[in-house]
Amino acid sequence: MTVHNSKALAPFLETVKKLKAYGEALGVLYWDLRTGAPRKGMDMRSEVIGSLSGDMFKLSTSPELGEWLSELEQPETFSGLSEIERKLVTDTREEYDRSVKIPPKLYEEHVVICSQAESKWEEAKAANDYEGFQPYLEKVIDYTQQFIDLWGPKETRYDTLLDQYEPGMTVKELDKVFGGLREQLVPLAAAIAASKHQPDTSFLRQNYDKQAQKAFSLRILKQMGYDFEAGRLDESTHPFATGLNTGDVRITTRYLEDDVTSALFGTIHEGGHALYEQNIMAELDGTTLSTGTSMGIHESQSRFWENVIGRSKPFWQHNFAALQQQFPGQLDVTLDQFYRGNNIVQPSLIRIEADELTYNLHIIIRYEIEKMIFNEGAKAADLPAIWNDKYKEYLGIEPPTNAEGVLQDVHWSGGAFGYFPSYSLGNMYAAQFADTLERELPNFWELVSAGDLLPIKEWLSERIYKYGKLRTPSELIQNVTGKPLDPQYLVKYLEKKYSEIYKL
Amino acid sequence: MTVHNSKALAPFLETVKKLKAYGEALGVLYWDLRTGAPRKGMDMRSEVIGSLSGDMFKLSTSPELGEWLSELEQPETFSGLSEIERKLVTDTREEYDRSVKIPPKLYEEHVVICSQAESKWEEAKAANDYEGFQPYLEKVIDYTQQFIDLWGPKETRYDTLLDQYEPGMTVKELDKVFGGLREQLVPLAAAIAASKHQPDTSFLRQNYDKQAQKAFSLRILKQMGYDFEAGRLDESTHPFATGLNTGDVRITTRYLEDDVTSALFGTIHEGGHALYEQNIMAELDGTTLSTGTSMGIHESQSRFWENVIGRSKPFWQHNFAALQQQFPGQLDVTLDQFYRGNNIVQPSLIRIEADELTYNLHIIIRYEIEKMIFNEGAKAADLPAIWNDKYKEYLGIEPPTNAEGVLQDVHWSGGAFGYFPSYSLGNMYAAQFADTLERELPNFWELVSAGDLLPIKEWLSERIYKYGKLRTPSELIQNVTGKPLDPQYLVKYLEKKYSEIYKL
Repeated sequence: MTVHNSKALAPFLETVKKLKAYGEALGVLYWDLRTGAPRKGMDMRSEVIGSLSGDMFKLSTSPELGEWLSELEQPETFSGLSEIERKLVTDTREEYDRSVKIPPKLYEEHVVICSQAESKWEEAKAANDYEGFQPYLEKVIDYTQQFIDLWGPKETRYDTLLDQYEPGMTVKELDKVFGGLREQLVPLAAAIAASKHQPDTSFLRQNYDKQAQKAFSLRILKQMGYDFEAGRLDESTHPFATGLNTGDVRITTRYLEDDVTSALFGTIHEGGHALYEQNIMAELDGTTLSTGTSMGIHESQSRFWENVIGRSKPFWQHNFAALQQQFPGQLDVTLDQFYRGNNIVQPSLIRIEADELTYNLHIIIRYEIEKMIFNEGAKAADLPAIWNDKYKEYLGIEPPTNAEGVLQDVHWSGGAFGYFPSYSLGNMYAAQFADTLERELPNFWELVSAGDLLPIKEWLSERIYKYGKLRTPSELIQNVTGKPLDPQYLVKYLEKKYSEIYKL
Repeated sequence: MTVHNSKALAPFLETVKKLKAYGEALGVLYWDLRTGAPRKGMDMRSEVIGSLSGDMFKLSTSPELGEWLSELEQPETFSGLSEIERKLVTDTREEYDRSVKIPPKLYEEHVVICSQAESKWEEAKAANDYEGFQPYLEKVIDYTQQFIDLWGPKETRYDTLLDQYEPGMTVKELDKVFGGLREQLVPLAAAIAASKHQPDTSFLRQNYDKQAQKAFSLRILKQMGYDFEAGRLDESTHPFATGLNTGDVRITTRYLEDDVTSALFGTIHEGGHALYEQNIMAELDGTTLSTGTSMGIHESQSRFWENVIGRSKPFWQHNFAALQQQFPGQLDVTLDQFYRGNNIVQPSLIRIEADELTYNLHIIIRYEIEKMIFNEGAKAADLPAIWNDKYKEYLGIEPPTNAEGVLQDVHWSGGAFGYFPSYSLGNMYAAQFADTLERELPNFWELVSAGDLLPIKEWLSERIYKYGKLRTPSELIQNVTGKPLDPQYLVKYLEKKYSEIYKL
C-alpha cells in the first residue's frame, strides 16, 4: 500500500488540535463559573465565552477546513491514513457539514431564542404557567424544524435530532428497544407497587454531617480507581463531570445535610463519567476523539457505577460498616435494611427523583412525545394533555399541575430535542455491558464485596474507555458484548433485582 | 467639530474586545493552574495556553488591525474619536508596532530559550552553579539585545526595556530618582543598624493556626473594602492577584504556620492590587484599558496598603486586639512591641525577604546592573563580582554564595529585564500619593485608627483606580499630587517612621 502523504494532513491535524484546545479552554471557563466564580464577573464572562465559542465555530466551519477534508477524503489519500486520522476525517466532516448548513444569522437567532426560552421556562415553572411558556416553546420547535430541513431529514425527521447525541441511533431501533422495555417495565412497576414488602427509607433522612459525607465520597472514589492526580472534587449546585483532558477530569457534587445518599450516589455517578474520560488512550490526546463516544455510552458508565455497583448488596457488604462509622449512632439498621432502603421503587412525577426502574418510563414518555412533535406534527398546545395521559398510562399517576408535569425539565427550552433517550440508552448499555463483564470476570461480585474495584475499572478501560470516540456506540456494544443493543439485559437485571427485594 | 465616523472604528473596537476576551480566558487558565489544577493535566494545559496565546498574538499583529489603526490615526478621524477611543488607538498602536517588529520565528526561539533558561536557573540556584547558568543567561541577553535593535533603541538601549513595564520611564529620570534615593537610604540604613533600640521579633515565630490566620485575613480584606462579590481568596504557592474583569478580581495567599504576619501582609498586598482592578470605571469594561496603567503604579497600590497602612501603628490600634483574640495566649506583647516587631529593618541578602527600607537598595542594585548590561556592555561572566561589590557597598554585606546573590531571582532567566525598577517606583509613588492623601483627607490617620478605611479606598478610586490605563503613570502622579515623581516623599516617610522606631 502506498502511503499518500497529503499536504492537507498537517494543517488538518493542526486545526483538530486547535479545536480541542478551544474546547478545553471553554471547559475550564464553564467549570469555573459553576464552582465559585464571583457573581459580579458573570456578565463579562458570558461575553468571553461567547467570543471564544464564536472563534471555535468559525474555525470549525472555515472554507480551508472544507478543502483539507475534501482532499483527505480522496480514496487513495484516505486509505493511506492511520485509523485515528481516518476517524478524525469522518467525524470532523460530519460536524463540518452539520455546522456549515446553518446560516450564521439563523444560528445566532436560535441562540437568543433558546436563551429567552430558558429564562421564561424558569418563571413559567415557578408560576405553573404553561400558557406563558408555550409561545417560546413554539419558537424553539420552529427553529429546530428549520434546522432539520437544512441538515436534511434522515429516515424520519426525528432521526436527524437523535443522531446529534447518539451517532447512528434511529427511530426504528429506538421504537423496538423502548417498545420492548415499556411492555415489560409497566407491569413490573405495577407488581412492585402492589407488593406488601415495601422498604423503609425513614432512616436515610436525618441530619448528616457534610464533612463526613465528603470523607466517605472520597473513600468511594478512591476505591473506584478515580485518579486524584488527574482530577479534583468540588461542589456545585448541579453536580457534573468535565473532561478537560485525560490528565484533568473534574467532578462536582452537592451535599444535602438531610440526605446521606444524595451526594454519595451523585459522586459515584459523576465518578463513572470521570473514569471513562481519565482512561482514554494516550494516542488520542489533544484530538477531538479524546472524549466519550456518545451521551448514551457516557451515561452507561455513570449508571453502571451508580446503580449496578453502587446500589448492589455486595458493594455495601464491603462499605456499610465504614459508612456507619462515619456517622456514629445514625445508621442503626441492618445491611439488608440499608440495601432495601436505597433501592425503593415508586412511581413518581419527577424524572430526576425517580428510581432506577421507573426512570426509564419517564424517558420513554419524553421520547414518544418528541417523536410526535417532529414526526407527527403534535403542537405545543397539545403537550400538557399528551404528557398527563402518558403518565397515567405508564406510571399510573397524573401530574396535578404542569409544573410537576410537562414543565419540569429544562431540555426543551434549550432546544435539546433528541437528548432524553441517552439516559435510558445508558441504562440498557450498562446492563448489557454488565452481563458480559460478569461472564468474563467470573469473580465479579466477589471483587465488589471485597472492595476490590480496580480489576473492574481495568476491564472497562480495556474494552470501552480507551477507545474514546474511535468506536461508535453500536461498534462498541457489538464488539464488547458480541450483540447489538438489546433491552432484555436491562429487563432481566431489573426483574432479578426487584423480585428479590420485593419478593415478587 | 465634525465627528468623522470612520468605517475602521467598529472592527477596531471589536478586535480590542476580542483581545480583552482572550486575556480574560488566559487569566482564568493561569489562575486555575496555580490554585489546584491536577498535576497530570498540566502538559496539555500548557499547549492550550500556547494555542490561545498564539491566536491572541496573531490577532494583535494582523495586517487588518494595522490598516484600521492607520485609518483611525488620520488627524481628522482621530480628533473625532472619544477620549477612550483615542487612548485605545495610541495604546494598541504601540503594542502593535512592538509586536510586528519581532519576526515570529525569532519570538518563538526566544520563548524556547527563556523556558530552558528558567529550568536551568532552578537547577543552578539549587546547586549554586552560576557557571552552569551563565551560557543560558548569555543567550537570553543576546535575544534581548536583538529585540532592542528591532524595536529601535530610545535615548539609551536600556530605555527601550524600561518602557515595556513603565510607559514613559527613562534612564535619565531613574538615574535621578534612584540616585537621590540611594544617597539617602544608605546612610539611613547604616544608622538604623547602629541603633541600640532593635525591635524584638521572636514572638512572631510560633505555631499559628491556619484557619485563624485565614479568618483574620478575611477581616482585613473586608475592612479595606475588597468586594467579595467581585472576587475570591484562594491559596497558592506564590501569592498573586489577577484582574479578569472588574467584577472578578481574585487574590491568593500562602499561610505559613510558623509566621503570623507572612500571609497577613501578603494578603493586604494582593488586596491592594485587587482594589485597583475592582474600581476601574465601567466605561472601560471589555477594553484593554480596563487594567492598571503600569507595573509601578500597580505596585504603588499593593505597597501603599501593605506598608503605609498595614504596617502603621494606627492600623494596629484598631486591629491588634482582634488579632490577639484570634490567637488566644499567643500574642502576649504590647501594641508597641507588636508594631516595632513588624517594622524591623535589617540589611539582608534576599530581596523578597527584605524590609520596607532596604528593599529599595536591592532594586537599585539590579537596576544599575541591568543598565550596565545593556548600556555599557557588561558581560554575564562579570555579574557575580559586580553583584557582590554592590551589596557590600550599599548594604554592607556580601553574599557568601551566588545562590544567595546573583542567582536569587527568576526574572533575568525569563528575559524580564527592565521589570525590577517597578518595585521601587511603587514605593516612591505610594509615598507621594500618601502625602497628597494625608493633606486632602486631614483625618486620614484617625480613619485608619478607627478601622474606617472605606473613605481612603474611595479617594484612591476617584483619583487613581477609576482611570485604569486611560492615564499614563506620569500623568497620574502629576494630576494627583501636582508634581512629577520625586523620591523625597519616600525618603521623608522612611526617615520619619524609622527615626521614631529606632530613636535615631
